[in-house]
Amino acid sequence: MYIRNFSSKLLDNAVSEFSKLPGIGQKTALRLVLHLLKQNVEQVADFGNAIIQLRNNIKYCKVCNNISDSDICDICSNPQRDHSTICVVESIKDVISIENTGQYSGIYHVLGGIISPIDGIGPADLKIALLEKNIAKGDVKEVIFALCTTMEGDTTNFYLFKKLNKYPVEITTIARGVSIGDELEYIDEVTLGRSIVNRTHFEETLASNKTT
Amino acid sequence: MYIRNFSSKLLDNAVSEFSKLPGIGQKTALRLVLHLLKQNVEQVADFGNAIIQLRNNIKYCKVCNNISDSDICDICSNPQRDHSTICVVESIKDVISIENTGQYSGIYHVLGGIISPIDGIGPADLKIALLEKNIAKGDVKEVIFALCTTMEGDTTNFYLFKKLNKYPVEITTIARGVSIGDELEYIDEVTLGRSIVNRTHFEETLASNKTT
Repeated sequence: MYIRNFSSKLLDNAVSEFSKLPGIGQKTALRLVLHLLKQNVEQVADFGNAIIQLRNNIKYCKVCNNISDSDICDICSNPQRDHSTICVVESIKDVISIENTGQYSGIYHVLGGIISPIDGIGPADLKIALLEKNIAKGDVKEVIFALCTTMEGDTTNFYLFKKLNKYPVEITTIARGVSIGDELEYIDEVTLGRSIVNRTHFEETLASNKTT
Repeated sequence: MYIRNFSSKLLDNAVSEFSKLPGIGQKTALRLVLHLLKQNVEQVADFGNAIIQLRNNIKYCKVCNNISDSDICDICSNPQRDHSTICVVESIKDVISIENTGQYSGIYHVLGGIISPIDGIGPADLKIALLEKNIAKGDVKEVIFALCTTMEGDTTNFYLFKKLNKYPVEITTIARGVSIGDELEYIDEVTLGRSIVNRTHFEETLASNKTT
């Protein structure tokens, strides 16, 4: 449905702003706006201001490039975290995903993207120099690559490996294998093949289940 | 996914405000917020302000209760519209839907809901007195009921009919019948039965197709 007549410029404006968001069409935008119209003035002001303030005041951590309220993010400034292990991820979303597992106690490095010639993203567009600087300080023992398992992810992994190989750090990558709940017959051959090659001791599985 | 750790109160706040919207979970909220973070400060300010201003400045038309920027909405203040025909609808959304058809040139009356005892909505919660006042002025020739075809819609239709019956106006209801594109075998019996009882002359169909 293309909405032609709103009878209100204010409504038209709010709906068109909402429909700029990804995955939100004009009809959904109208539904959301009419929902907001039913709320208190204060609640709507809270909504609008939360977004404006986020954009105005958000910072990026000077150590790891993660999103943060201050110059150094909560994870980098936490003395309880293991600062000798850096997990390299593509975006802030990945930091949140890994934090949610509760299985990682090291720090992160957010690249801000992956090498993708099709999208015009080269190594210079990513925060690779910052990562190298952090590693060059000499306190880092392990760098974990946690990028997506696509061609672009693999390219970025390889580029980083070449860059970081000269430093005395262990370079690892997150395990690729069968997902929890997967049925073997539906898994692609490469994943299934790797999961056989990189098989783990059954006792280790038991131990990691306990910590979850 | 329940997101436990955001490492930023600003981000946390924006995501939680977005997830209050209907049909938007925490994961979608995060995606929308991260999208907004990539936009210019001005664009995000436009978004936030469009919503706040809508809520602060929106008015409801004093004649028809439609959403409006001024005291009288664009439709009611338009001398080109037929002010002797009032189409009674449940909500603003229905006004937009009917306006989009381009088939109606009268004015509207937005009830602001329908009678629904389960939801605790009685006749007193709707803008029925205003409608009666408008009709009592004596310029109205026809009132069209365009409410939804549910039990609540029918109840409201019947209540309005009883209220408005004493005025010298023609009371009509939108046609119920087979939708364009429907296959007869899948239509419920009541709709199909009505569409046979209320059959129209074929030439009228041709004429209405021409105006579309």
